[in-house]
Amino acid sequence: MNTNPIGIFDSGLGGLTVARAIQKILPHESVIYFGDTARLPYGNKSPKIIKKYSLKIADFLISKGAKIIVIACNTASALALNEVQKHVRVPIVGVIDPGVEAAIHATQNKRIGVIGTVATIRSKEYENKIKATDPTMTVISQPCPLFVPLVEEGWLEGAISKAIANIYLEPFKTENVDTLVLGCTHYPLLKPLLKSQINHKIALIDSAEPVAKKIFELINTLELQSNSHSNGTLSCFITDVFSQFETIAERFLEGPIADVTTVDFF
Amino acid sequence: MNTNPIGIFDSGLGGLTVARAIQKILPHESVIYFGDTARLPYGNKSPKIIKKYSLKIADFLISKGAKIIVIACNTASALALNEVQKHVRVPIVGVIDPGVEAAIHATQNKRIGVIGTVATIRSKEYENKIKATDPTMTVISQPCPLFVPLVEEGWLEGAISKAIANIYLEPFKTENVDTLVLGCTHYPLLKPLLKSQINHKIALIDSAEPVAKKIFELINTLELQSNSHSNGTLSCFITDVFSQFETIAERFLEGPIADVTTVDFF
Repeated sequence: MNTNPIGIFDSGLGGLTVARAIQKILPHESVIYFGDTARLPYGNKSPKIIKKYSLKIADFLISKGAKIIVIACNTASALALNEVQKHVRVPIVGVIDPGVEAAIHATQNKRIGVIGTVATIRSKEYENKIKATDPTMTVISQPCPLFVPLVEEGWLEGAISKAIANIYLEPFKTENVDTLVLGCTHYPLLKPLLKSQINHKIALIDSAEPVAKKIFELINTLELQSNSHSNGTLSCFITDVFSQFETIAERFLEGPIADVTTVDFF
Repeated sequence: MNTNPIGIFDSGLGGLTVARAIQKILPHESVIYFGDTARLPYGNKSPKIIKKYSLKIADFLISKGAKIIVIACNTASALALNEVQKHVRVPIVGVIDPGVEAAIHATQNKRIGVIGTVATIRSKEYENKIKATDPTMTVISQPCPLFVPLVEEGWLEGAISKAIANIYLEPFKTENVDTLVLGCTHYPLLKPLLKSQINHKIALIDSAEPVAKKIFELINTLELQSNSHSNGTLSCFITDVFSQFETIAERFLEGPIADVTTVDFF
């Protein structure tokens, strides 16, 4: 029983969808969120630099008392989870495993699609973990480097977004997948667009809820629950306040963002 | 007369077009190029963080003996040129002034368009400098946040790129501009695309050549010419070697990239 916060980090603000899902299922828990906005995006950077950034951020969250850390960034989960786990003493949860479990649970024809950043897809983490769980699965992966800028630009619909989605989704149509993993925290905002450009029966797997469920279980199993009776708080730390910060943050959070601190490290 | 190198920096690799233009016009000069690939892009970040990064990079180029520094990044030129000038003792050249001069020289109807990153357009540097030179000029500016990812993705043509360009270029058609400043080092690669989506009589202003001419003049005026009779070298320093590094570098350089060192600072 402790009131220490749950630490969450992402390269930017997309991980706020995970923060929101966790606070929904665990309303008495406080959350500290770290968005590395001075160095985003991670998706086109090297494994070496992503590991370096992730370790520094984990240290920061620990210094703020985090009792558990969620790597809400798919790219950092794919490339730095093991290093962060070796580096700190609190439990670390990435977004890949919960997404993999949800996808395996959802598929009926054992044909799963994965979309993500260039770095995430190159890491083959989703593919390897799905096949390690069930070698009879077929996995088709597709990097979608224009999706993050589309979301940041706010082009969640319209002819251009549809055309881009149509190109990226083409392999999943020809390969007849029935389940598509949204392997980036930005992509859930594109759900209506993706549904309009692909067979509507395809299950879209957003890891925010599976991650929240995993945290719920872990917090209970490890007896790390908050003993507070009031609602938890959300404190945000970011490395750069850029011009559209609030607009984008509130798009992911689906509500106002209040407690924001800029931190300067590296 | 000295063989010290010309220092050039950019958030990424786009400034290699400037390096190439300088080496073409000043073949005996050596160039050291710094691309901040671990923190790119700058175009969606805050003025404060862009200044911080620029000062650190200028210090690095000075430590490598740079006799003159070119800020090849439009965003850093717009937001950090003054700070860098105050901070170091060698001459500093940005890409905005040469672009402004070339645009004013090119326009006949005094209606100039400017495209750039969100941060460059928000800074109003192009607009203010054009109007400071000639208050009778009309300037129409448009941020184009999807153009950098389009170039990095290699989508320099095709239906999607055309549609995106068409949306961004719309204001320049209705406002009847006759000159368009390409206010980002990535954009010259989009010249054929832009020409296909806009009145082909519009002059496209790419600052690489005007910057190279300015450096040529400065080097001669300040008597900083190299006394070497052999061709100069190009040494690249980058903060992260990402997966598509060589492909993208060679796209800008229009040739092979040889001498590359990864540096780790911040």
